[in-house]
Amino acid sequence: MPQYFSRRNLNFLLYEVFNATALNQYPRFSAHDRETFDMTLDAITQIADTYMYPYLREVDRNQPELRDGQVEVHPKVGEYLKAIGEAGLIGAPFSFEDGGQQMPETVAACIGYIAMAANNGMMYTGLTAGAADLIVAFGSEELKQKYVANMLAGKWQGTMALTEPQAGSSLSDITTSASPQADGTYRIKGQKVFISAGDHNHCDNIIHLMLARIDGAPKGTKGISLFVVPKYRIDDNGNKTRNDVTSTGVYHKLGQKGVPAMHLTMGDADDCHGWLVGEPHKGLPYMFQMMNGARIGVGMTGAAIASAAYYASLQYAKERPQSRRLDEKSALDSPQIPIIQHPDVKRMLLLQKAVVEGSLSLLIECSRYFDLSHAAEGEEKANSALLLDLLTPIAKTYPCEMGLVAVSNGLQVLGGYGFTEDFPLEQYYRDIRITPIYEGTTGIQGQDLLGRKVTMKGGKAVQLLFAEINKVISEAETFDELKPYAKKLQAELARVQEVTMALMPFAMQGQIERYLMDATLYLEMFGNMTIAWQWLKQGVAAKHALLTQSPEGDEEVFYESKIHTMKYFFHYELPKNLGLAARLKDNEVLTIAQEKEVVL
Amino acid sequence: MPQYFSRRNLNFLLYEVFNATALNQYPRFSAHDRETFDMTLDAITQIADTYMYPYLREVDRNQPELRDGQVEVHPKVGEYLKAIGEAGLIGAPFSFEDGGQQMPETVAACIGYIAMAANNGMMYTGLTAGAADLIVAFGSEELKQKYVANMLAGKWQGTMALTEPQAGSSLSDITTSASPQADGTYRIKGQKVFISAGDHNHCDNIIHLMLARIDGAPKGTKGISLFVVPKYRIDDNGNKTRNDVTSTGVYHKLGQKGVPAMHLTMGDADDCHGWLVGEPHKGLPYMFQMMNGARIGVGMTGAAIASAAYYASLQYAKERPQSRRLDEKSALDSPQIPIIQHPDVKRMLLLQKAVVEGSLSLLIECSRYFDLSHAAEGEEKANSALLLDLLTPIAKTYPCEMGLVAVSNGLQVLGGYGFTEDFPLEQYYRDIRITPIYEGTTGIQGQDLLGRKVTMKGGKAVQLLFAEINKVISEAETFDELKPYAKKLQAELARVQEVTMALMPFAMQGQIERYLMDATLYLEMFGNMTIAWQWLKQGVAAKHALLTQSPEGDEEVFYESKIHTMKYFFHYELPKNLGLAARLKDNEVLTIAQEKEVVL
Repeated sequence: MPQYFSRRNLNFLLYEVFNATALNQYPRFSAHDRETFDMTLDAITQIADTYMYPYLREVDRNQPELRDGQVEVHPKVGEYLKAIGEAGLIGAPFSFEDGGQQMPETVAACIGYIAMAANNGMMYTGLTAGAADLIVAFGSEELKQKYVANMLAGKWQGTMALTEPQAGSSLSDITTSASPQADGTYRIKGQKVFISAGDHNHCDNIIHLMLARIDGAPKGTKGISLFVVPKYRIDDNGNKTRNDVTSTGVYHKLGQKGVPAMHLTMGDADDCHGWLVGEPHKGLPYMFQMMNGARIGVGMTGAAIASAAYYASLQYAKERPQSRRLDEKSALDSPQIPIIQHPDVKRMLLLQKAVVEGSLSLLIECSRYFDLSHAAEGEEKANSALLLDLLTPIAKTYPCEMGLVAVSNGLQVLGGYGFTEDFPLEQYYRDIRITPIYEGTTGIQGQDLLGRKVTMKGGKAVQLLFAEINKVISEAETFDELKPYAKKLQAELARVQEVTMALMPFAMQGQIERYLMDATLYLEMFGNMTIAWQWLKQGVAAKHALLTQSPEGDEEVFYESKIHTMKYFFHYELPKNLGLAARLKDNEVLTIAQEKEVVL
Repeated sequence: MPQYFSRRNLNFLLYEVFNATALNQYPRFSAHDRETFDMTLDAITQIADTYMYPYLREVDRNQPELRDGQVEVHPKVGEYLKAIGEAGLIGAPFSFEDGGQQMPETVAACIGYIAMAANNGMMYTGLTAGAADLIVAFGSEELKQKYVANMLAGKWQGTMALTEPQAGSSLSDITTSASPQADGTYRIKGQKVFISAGDHNHCDNIIHLMLARIDGAPKGTKGISLFVVPKYRIDDNGNKTRNDVTSTGVYHKLGQKGVPAMHLTMGDADDCHGWLVGEPHKGLPYMFQMMNGARIGVGMTGAAIASAAYYASLQYAKERPQSRRLDEKSALDSPQIPIIQHPDVKRMLLLQKAVVEGSLSLLIECSRYFDLSHAAEGEEKANSALLLDLLTPIAKTYPCEMGLVAVSNGLQVLGGYGFTEDFPLEQYYRDIRITPIYEGTTGIQGQDLLGRKVTMKGGKAVQLLFAEINKVISEAETFDELKPYAKKLQAELARVQEVTMALMPFAMQGQIERYLMDATLYLEMFGNMTIAWQWLKQGVAAKHALLTQSPEGDEEVFYESKIHTMKYFFHYELPKNLGLAARLKDNEVLTIAQEKEVVL
């Protein structure tokens, strides 16, 4: 089977860079050790190899169709759901009492990575886990008892039902209504669009975690409540009754064709029952707990698709002979060389590797902060939560936006063949395109970073991040080969600070639109700095291994390749911040709406 | 019908920026005036509106299939070919004596732009024109008589048949053979892949302009000859006999699904007849005459797809209400605003407009140089040819690479809807992806620019270009509003010169691989400077119109929007050169093959 991820690289990140087993000192994770981590990764790898990767193309070519109100998806999806549910992998990070294994998210994130790299068209279980997590966190004991076990077993599908036709990025404007009933339930009425896995034929029930407004609720985001709205209502004896949720349409999409994006209509027959989760009007903060996890999950999807594309193009580049070295163009009697030996092809492969492994490193870092924000105590807990908050828009965006560039470079490595359906690159290029849109577009993430995260608690999160980065810089300075890169990262911190200071007066003066007008570019600049940090961190771990273990053969090449890719990132990717910083400090305003509309 | 190009913008470029009617002073074009130009653009617009744009999605969704050795394409392709042939638009720039209208390429390029913007899946006629042009330029009178008229009438399809399975970018390595026969013809044997329009059911014959090696020819590019290899041989009485060219396969592709990319096999029955074009072993220089035109044509395809995507996303952005101004987020009683008023959306639209109209301007500039290189005399002729040579890799690459970024931004403007088949953005995103690969990948174009064009004739072409750019800078300096941009472009010239000088020693020392290792990035930097020149040129023309004509209403907005978009380019796009220049001057070598392979 072609390679789509590297277990060696995962081991490096988990055990050499992030010391994942150290998490086991916390009571929550004390049942785990390296053996349970490794067994978990083995289990998902076997499922991915058996049920997912081999059907990548087939699932793509047989997209979901709505027939007589029923959505039919590829039968392999059912086999996958059964296997992953039975292996206990959907709810691995859940508490024992909720049917989980108390697996650190640091490891659980790698489950998602392997699965998405194998076949991102089978993105069902992440949604189920997120929905179940919301019920566990905020739902009543009755809701927990009724829903969670079957969801974690892969028998019932979970969804997050936010978006409406008139309210995409603007959740303030959702209008789906919830009318209270005498029995404590609600009657739901409205429409939702783009609901991933919103209906399909390989589960016994669909459990929508849905946002709606209780009659008379305040306008805007402060009047939104969260409901459980199942496809089938279950009575106390376990009997199923069809709830009034109709599959009105299935979108045909550019990519991720294995999973249906549904248009749902609730309450056409005034009989759509919903159950309130937690308190009224607190739906949005609740949903954002799921949303933050989902954003990391989308970032991981981007990294995973880019990973599969990288290994596919790498294999091609090693095997495809074409032309000769530029210094030996006229040596026509010599055989053609593998294209990996051409500098421009090598550059495109290094770009991919730098994006994939830099992204993965950041995503595991974020998962570690997630674990610490739950399992640690006191300052460590609070600081980890702040760092996670700050890094979430970057961990969502960088792997998706730069993953898209990486996949496009992977396709380019194959030339004309990359454009054909004979190779999977064209599918990865289609599949990854949704990731900068899912769960808050890149524009929304930029506003989140600059408008909310950078300024929260008087800038404390940024201070904490810079302190973390400075730690890595200090470590790097102890290795001669890494010193120049420590220096470059130091300069980058100063650059980001300078740009932030240049923008801050607009925020102080309440010129919010001006402050945020180029927030997307700020996010890009901040992201490059963040990934440089992750690469220097990996460089330190690789250098440490080279000096202390004197590895040979493939192992030596692995570590040298890490350092080489780190250098690529600093020499080719990081300089992009020169242009971004110049733009961000430039005072010419061109995008704020004016009286005369200038774009024709 | 939705807008897919702007005639107003074409008129601006043709008549206000490039003064196309001035070409009519040359004898070759003396039969033309603005009226004939306008009638030509009207004619293609009507054909595009009638036969092309309305079938964009349908042609995409019914891709060509090979059935019993016959390739079937969408029936609308046949109607389009008939209409455009009858209108005399395929061979418009050909000489009167060859059945053309001696239309300047400056105008003919706009025919291609409009057609490709309407439906780039119908790219048949550009190939036919290129093939016919080769026969006219280098073929015998007999070949001309036999083939050209039916090709220009749209009855016979032309192709360029270069690529072979083992020889993609490396034409040195083609192996298709040509054995001389007593009657002066050749027997052809071999395989060709990715032959666009290489077979289909809406023409009476397919005329391949094919590269092959005559038995005993020298190795490498100096042993390649050019042949006419028809699908049907025509005897002196006009009788048709099937030639031994077999359609072995049709590729299924990511995009441009309207046109089949064929795998062809010649000589399976030892009966594939070919006719030599021109002299033996000169096939590659001949083909490069067609290739240079084809490269400009591919650039135009990139600009055209990006154009259609721009107008589609612009329309959506004007109509789609979502959220409120960032300064008025809490004004929940006010209605949602059209998303074009959000700075980040405006930025994405300006990016698209800057790329589309900057690219189109460069492509028309190149077409004008083409016209002058044929119609002018003495130094003007020679200099125009040199400038065209220098700019061709940029005119091929910038509109395609940045067109791809533009289309992706267009899709992003639509959010989740952009990812669905309900809107055409997802198709444009697929269609444009081949353009950085067609007719020499971006990597090949970079090597052409830095390795050949920059150094040819002792750097004379670059000197000429800089003189042209300095002329525009001087004109811009006469307008207060443009002065800062004249200064920025001046600085950019200096930057590009500095980078070129930093690289030149490697070329002098024969370190060709080192010299060219980042040629793709050099091309990107040079491209940004080139498009800045085109934008300043447009800025000058717009400023001139505003001051001399005092336009009002839509006309005023048109010109102000030009200046606004020019500013966008200088403030947002040009700063990218800071990072590119930093990388190009950086001496760290990371991509040249080393003993230990560092990419895993």
